[in-house]
Amino acid sequence: MVRKRQILVIGNNTNGCTPKHEKIAYDIGSEIAKSDSVLISGGLGGVMEASSHGAHDANGFTVGIIPQDDASFANEFCDVVIPTGMGLTRDYLNALSADGVIIVGGGSGTLSEACASYMHKKPMVAIKNLGSSVDPYIDGYIDHRKNIKIIGVDTAQEAVKKILELITA
Amino acid sequence: MVRKRQILVIGNNTNGCTPKHEKIAYDIGSEIAKSDSVLISGGLGGVMEASSHGAHDANGFTVGIIPQDDASFANEFCDVVIPTGMGLTRDYLNALSADGVIIVGGGSGTLSEACASYMHKKPMVAIKNLGSSVDPYIDGYIDHRKNIKIIGVDTAQEAVKKILELITA
Amino acid sequence: MVRKRQILVIGNNTNGCTPKHEKIAYDIGSEIAKSDSVLISGGLGGVMEASSHGAHDANGFTVGIIPQDDASFANEFCDVVIPTGMGLTRDYLNALSADGVIIVGGGSGTLSEACASYMHKKPMVAIKNLGSSVDPYIDGYIDHRKNIKIIGVDTAQEAVKKILELITA
Amino acid sequence: MVRKRQILVIGNNTNGCTPKHEKIAYDIGSEIAKSDSVLISGGLGGVMEASSHGAHDANGFTVGIIPQDDASFANEFCDVVIPTGMGLTRDYLNALSADGVIIVGGGSGTLSEACASYMHKKPMVAIKNLGSSVDPYIDGYIDHRKNIKIIGVDTAQEAVKKILELITA
Repeated sequence: MVRKRQILVIGNNTNGCTPKHEKIAYDIGSEIAKSDSVLISGGLGGVMEASSHGAHDANGFTVGIIPQDDASFANEFCDVVIPTGMGLTRDYLNALSADGVIIVGGGSGTLSEACASYMHKKPMVAIKNLGSSVDPYIDGYIDHRKNIKIIGVDTAQEAVKKILELITA
Repeated sequence: MVRKRQILVIGNNTNGCTPKHEKIAYDIGSEIAKSDSVLISGGLGGVMEASSHGAHDANGFTVGIIPQDDASFANEFCDVVIPTGMGLTRDYLNALSADGVIIVGGGSGTLSEACASYMHKKPMVAIKNLGSSVDPYIDGYIDHRKNIKIIGVDTAQEAVKKILELITA
Repeated sequence: MVRKRQILVIGNNTNGCTPKHEKIAYDIGSEIAKSDSVLISGGLGGVMEASSHGAHDANGFTVGIIPQDDASFANEFCDVVIPTGMGLTRDYLNALSADGVIIVGGGSGTLSEACASYMHKKPMVAIKNLGSSVDPYIDGYIDHRKNIKIIGVDTAQEAVKKILELITA
Repeated sequence: MVRKRQILVIGNNTNGCTPKHEKIAYDIGSEIAKSDSVLISGGLGGVMEASSHGAHDANGFTVGIIPQDDASFANEFCDVVIPTGMGLTRDYLNALSADGVIIVGGGSGTLSEACASYMHKKPMVAIKNLGSSVDPYIDGYIDHRKNIKIIGVDTAQEAVKKILELITA
């Protein structure tokens, strides 16, 4: 078995991504690389690009699963690109590819990925206080089934530390 | 052009579906049929089955888009079954098949369908006070893009009347 | 159980569709309608449009499962449109939605749908002598597993008669 | 831009895979690794496993895009696993992820992947004389559009040399 842990980072695309989001995402990417895990993302801009950039600068390995059918739409920090040609439906593939998920802000797309991850019982942590559509569910459950709690954390370092604990548990 | 309006009804599967949900869903199906629209659903139990049942009893036409790869998993009130073999990823196809969406309670799957519908700017109405995972977003927007507001309503009749208005507008 | 038989018609899109293909496809649609079955197609031009047209003129019911994410791309003879937003990957959904498949000419897309149908053991008939990419496999098996034989026929009437027999068997 | 060439290897799953297929697939994996390309496969047995094994032994990098929704179904030589939960529909994602495709025998699934690759104009080479369902199309075109010719070759070394030429051209 050669497969490393695969950690999915989700959050705002270019639209809605502030320098604060980018900084945290970059640091999360860096920590993921240092933990010798593979970073999975949606392969586009904003949090996806910043986290891939951080992983790349720390000699990590990154995969971008993109909506388009052509790899050239991915950001430049993806080592491997999976062009799905499925539009936003690819959000579900992101969730399925994750051993654990880190949420950095984000709107409706991020919330849909969190739902998909929840349905498939993937461990999730979320950075608090970033104005995310996931906020109503941080430190709680998305529904009555109580599949998995989304754990709120404050920093990039905490996020990666916590998700590694949850994956290992 | 022969195509009729396609109205998607989403909400709890068998798990979490109360008699109250079922009654409302049945009535929504009935109203959809009377409006000469096609009812689209996820084709399984709970709200999906009750709404299809209601449409069927009112001589309507129903389509079930199901996660499995075999039509036999659909409830008995689906006139046409689309077995996707894609698991819960089929939630996105439901959203894409809708001219408008009616939400009756529901958990993480329903919330993910609401997100997909929001991203594709589909008109949405939701029955209020049913303990839905969509509740934090009723009469508001899922994110900062303000694509489409989820309109809260109280009854099955109101739900169908409102969604028809929104589709026509 | 209200569901009718669902018969998928596949073949050339506008590109490569001759008047001969169109005539046969139209007649197949007509026969499907007369047999009280639902016609499923890929919802675009050529054989898809002609067969839907034929079914429509004979008061049948038609479903178009299209690659785009917007129903307006379907031909005007689809009663229900399922916009998948998945590009040509929707070929697999067509196959899964079929109780039986009728092949009218066609190139690489049609061959891929035949392969998907074969893998899911759907009964198939093909009109002979239309220069189809499926030709090497007519009256034979696509591979060593011998899942299902593609039965060659000469006319629209024969095609529908045969597929109904195979579905019932 | 950090992305390396992504070469897809397709062919028989365990069922139908002979030692001859395995040997060639293993050698192809090895050559792909030596060319510093990423090997993409369907992540299961037979040709998929043998080629990933070969790449792995030559210190290459491998990705498995699998039908199931759980990474544990992949063979042990996949560095990254993309569990699609889409069943055989994942064949299209394999094709989209390829800069070029190498065909080693194979039945209906392989033929469907070849069709998908053809529709998306991906360069393809095929090992000759392995009893593949793709055989009728080797050194020819799958349909009248003449998108891309499937080039027949005799050895693993030739296959990788040729696909690299075609990708670069």
